[in-house]
Amino acid sequence: MRNIKIVLEYDGTRYHGWQRQGDRTTIQRVLEESIRTITQEDIRIAGSGRTDAGVHALNQVANFKTNSNIAARNLLNGINSLLPGDIVVKELMETDKAFHARYDAKSKVYLYQILNRPVRSALYRHYAWFIREALDIDRIREATGLLIGTYDFSSFCASNCGITNHVRTVINTDVEMNQRSMIKIYVEANGFLKYMVRNIVGTLVDVGRGKLSSTEFKGIVEAKDRRRAGMTAPACGLFLKKVKY
Amino acid sequence: MRNIKIVLEYDGTRYHGWQRQGDRTTIQRVLEESIRTITQEDIRIAGSGRTDAGVHALNQVANFKTNSNIAARNLLNGINSLLPGDIVVKELMETDKAFHARYDAKSKVYLYQILNRPVRSALYRHYAWFIREALDIDRIREATGLLIGTYDFSSFCASNCGITNHVRTVINTDVEMNQRSMIKIYVEANGFLKYMVRNIVGTLVDVGRGKLSSTEFKGIVEAKDRRRAGMTAPACGLFLKKVKY
Repeated sequence: MRNIKIVLEYDGTRYHGWQRQGDRTTIQRVLEESIRTITQEDIRIAGSGRTDAGVHALNQVANFKTNSNIAARNLLNGINSLLPGDIVVKELMETDKAFHARYDAKSKVYLYQILNRPVRSALYRHYAWFIREALDIDRIREATGLLIGTYDFSSFCASNCGITNHVRTVINTDVEMNQRSMIKIYVEANGFLKYMVRNIVGTLVDVGRGKLSSTEFKGIVEAKDRRRAGMTAPACGLFLKKVKY
Repeated sequence: MRNIKIVLEYDGTRYHGWQRQGDRTTIQRVLEESIRTITQEDIRIAGSGRTDAGVHALNQVANFKTNSNIAARNLLNGINSLLPGDIVVKELMETDKAFHARYDAKSKVYLYQILNRPVRSALYRHYAWFIREALDIDRIREATGLLIGTYDFSSFCASNCGITNHVRTVINTDVEMNQRSMIKIYVEANGFLKYMVRNIVGTLVDVGRGKLSSTEFKGIVEAKDRRRAGMTAPACGLFLKKVKY
């Protein structure tokens, strides 16, 4: 049996997230249906992790087992020919039999986009959080850097996350702003809790507005109390950028 | 009577272009309806020029006359509150009574995006022309530079363009490629013929593929013969980037 690794790009706008949920339109379901049509097998794909409804991916990773002997290149083209325009398999390769997209992931990089200008955007309406009030990018950058390290991130975990161990290690962060007033916040961690990036970004925006100092932000990280953090940033600004193995 | 200048961004994907055409959904029609609701007047807007169906704008410019005394800021917010998500007024200001968005335009800058990688894109599917075959960016850059100057651009004019004078001056060009395999071709001219940028880009892609040399490209520019040029590039890759006055 072959173990196939795939790298995916998707526009999450019209999907109920990654994870299969009965008859709802999810990335996993649409993808599995396309692969089944090509391989004629009842395959199941394992993703590196779930993405929420409306969240996008630049390079989501998944794997599936198949007895099909279709060459990798033909498998890639066949699957892509069946997928809708808003999902695409960028890479497909046969990999080690033991490889598992979720359990073997060493870290993931998420990108969150905030469009910070006086008026909303027509072209980025599905790809960024629009914030009218001018944010202080240096304050956001400083606070974001304070996330690096190993912490119990309960302050940024959705109340219904269902996981008891909230300790994760943030490996790296970066904050930049381009000429088009797009703030890009990158967070790399060895794992993420439900809504973690979106809750972090909601709180960072309070820092950028001057409502919170960096010290107060650090205090929220250490408080392990969801009630202390800011709002959950909208899904549309979030992109799964990379999964590292 | 006040003369109001507006700067617009729009996602042209679901529109039959800029120009009002009876009952069809066009940018001009949707915009005029929103402005009329706010001003309670039968206003008409003049755009700097038409954009084709599916073409986008980062900074289209238009103007309209009104007797309304609503303050500029309230007019902007009111119009934007009525416009759909894929059209937005970025700037609105009262201007010189004689200003006309079309007749006073000194030059326009168009951007054309080509995504040049092995597989199509989910996120850029409406915002770039996807070309699988690797293009030679240096060859494209060299040929694009040959457009600078005053020429009869009949070779790149749609057959049904309806204008007899095809002489235009290309003022500047630029070609760049970013890390995501997106080729960006910028063309600034004092005016554009129907499909001119898209016909130029279709021919430049033949240069990038090695089908045409720069000398042959120059020959096509000088031939004044539409049959010599390449295909019309898809509308979705084209953006009206700037109008200069």
